[in-house]
Amino acid sequence: MIRTIEWTDDGVVMIDQRLLPTEEVYNTYRSVEEVAEAIETMVIRGAPAIGVAAAMGIALGVANLASKENVEENFAAIALRIQKTRPTARNLFWAIERMEKVFQKVQDRSLEEIQSAMTTEAVTIHREDIEINRKIGEHGQQLLSDKMTLLTHCNAGALATAGYGTALGVVRAAVENGKKIQVFANETRPFLQGSRLTAWEMMKEDIPCTLITDNMAGYFMQLNQIQVVVVGADRIARNGDVANKIGTYTVAVLAREHQIPFYVAAPLSTIDLDTPTGEGIPIEQRNIQEVTEIKGQVIAPASVSVANPAFDVTPNRLVSAIITEKGVATDPYGESIPALFEK
Amino acid sequence: MIRTIEWTDDGVVMIDQRLLPTEEVYNTYRSVEEVAEAIETMVIRGAPAIGVAAAMGIALGVANLASKENVEENFAAIALRIQKTRPTARNLFWAIERMEKVFQKVQDRSLEEIQSAMTTEAVTIHREDIEINRKIGEHGQQLLSDKMTLLTHCNAGALATAGYGTALGVVRAAVENGKKIQVFANETRPFLQGSRLTAWEMMKEDIPCTLITDNMAGYFMQLNQIQVVVVGADRIARNGDVANKIGTYTVAVLAREHQIPFYVAAPLSTIDLDTPTGEGIPIEQRNIQEVTEIKGQVIAPASVSVANPAFDVTPNRLVSAIITEKGVATDPYGESIPALFEK
Repeated sequence: MIRTIEWTDDGVVMIDQRLLPTEEVYNTYRSVEEVAEAIETMVIRGAPAIGVAAAMGIALGVANLASKENVEENFAAIALRIQKTRPTARNLFWAIERMEKVFQKVQDRSLEEIQSAMTTEAVTIHREDIEINRKIGEHGQQLLSDKMTLLTHCNAGALATAGYGTALGVVRAAVENGKKIQVFANETRPFLQGSRLTAWEMMKEDIPCTLITDNMAGYFMQLNQIQVVVVGADRIARNGDVANKIGTYTVAVLAREHQIPFYVAAPLSTIDLDTPTGEGIPIEQRNIQEVTEIKGQVIAPASVSVANPAFDVTPNRLVSAIITEKGVATDPYGESIPALFEK
Repeated sequence: MIRTIEWTDDGVVMIDQRLLPTEEVYNTYRSVEEVAEAIETMVIRGAPAIGVAAAMGIALGVANLASKENVEENFAAIALRIQKTRPTARNLFWAIERMEKVFQKVQDRSLEEIQSAMTTEAVTIHREDIEINRKIGEHGQQLLSDKMTLLTHCNAGALATAGYGTALGVVRAAVENGKKIQVFANETRPFLQGSRLTAWEMMKEDIPCTLITDNMAGYFMQLNQIQVVVVGADRIARNGDVANKIGTYTVAVLAREHQIPFYVAAPLSTIDLDTPTGEGIPIEQRNIQEVTEIKGQVIAPASVSVANPAFDVTPNRLVSAIITEKGVATDPYGESIPALFEK
């Protein structure tokens, strides 16, 4: 069992994902500021995991309040600090909204009761995320056949969630159902979530996994060695446009070219009904050193001009289905996605 | 002026491309074995540069012969050593064939005359390669408009040739003709020829260049920030299928999706009239450590399964034109390519 993030009496414990796979280091984060920095620096990443960390960061901030004085302003400042960490993942804002709702309900009670309610909600979000992932896995695995080889991009696994994973949850559920699944993992430059995290997760569970660089996926599709693509998502617009790790769009174009199904696995908390299309999704531009250096080793000329968009948007026409805990949505997404929220 | 490879009285001098861009180290290679290893370990790479190195390696091997005894067997062994270095680049075999032809013509003369003829031929191949690149550049630059932004993959520059370059020769010629060209350089995992070599070449000549990871090209095409793609080639089949650095096929699929022209710039020595289609082109599978380590830093779990095909094949239907020193070939390539050899 991979422990991504946990609430403890000492604070929020997270595995430092930047050090994987060579080191497994668990650190304790004891303030909202420490959790916010952990999200910003990608100690923890993956939309659902960011949502859990956001909730726990807020609970921690409230738990650290010494008195009830200005509790509303203090709560707002805590939530704002978390809100500013990263712009793209919908789950971050979804988790903040959930914590806000609970706060509004209990803010007139004693500080201790407020703190307890916040902690309870954060721990609930954590627990529910694992349950949701298992449901996504169960729905998704029905789309996979025995002996399929599946390509995934980035890490939408246990490390990207409270546990089990979304895209890799689909893989795990298929394997639990006796299907022999082979995985191709795109290494996912620049941050290498595929080589460092997905390959590591798959090896931990003895699921056959072949690591490739991002530009090799087309080659293996040409050879008919990939039958299906499953990825996670950072934010899904109301019309089914999918923001996910940079490079996902390219995988979707390649999948369409080879008539391979392209599935997105994500909880409803990743879906943003208030954003009509992908054009409205903010794309984070990250530090260029993620591109020009790897583990401190310089791999590009000094002062070269670099772009580093962290996400791209796959238009709904390239998405074969969106797998959620409430079932599988397909085209027309403008109808099927809102319908999921009615279930 | 970037000096990729040169024949000197001491031996063959090459810049060690593995150390770029952080170190500019020129080494002297004094035997056919040393040159062969330099090709295998990618001290020198790029199909035309490999061709020049192959010719010089053979000339060096013959120059090192102490007597004329068994000269035919010795020449065959020298040529075979070079032939076994890398399988995909057509120019390697083309250069060997040129050296063989000269050898056959002079093998009855004195050892000194044979050695002199071999050296002359190798130096001629070197000189001609630069002239050919300039002609490719002149033909290719006519396809580019002022203020275009061009995407290239891998390095088909001065470092991939005797000088000037094929794809980057087209860029250089356009700039020399007063066109303002911006370049996007795919970093080109796993060996990073884009970030280490192409970005370095462009910066040396103050040609605006933005470095991106390979999986970002689709994002910038979506934003209409790329108007044309120009790449080199390692081997072109008679029907116009193009083997080039892994990831080229993906770029071609993306270019088609966005209705962006996809041009291949290469000398006739890269075209293999004896290979009817891309299916007949051998694809080199290289050491997996190129994927799992960068400059000695481990970026993947130990003993993970890894694939490392060094090239892929872009089918002719995705190729808008092939730019050669004899002119520009377009569909139907089965007619236009053989016609180039008649000119």
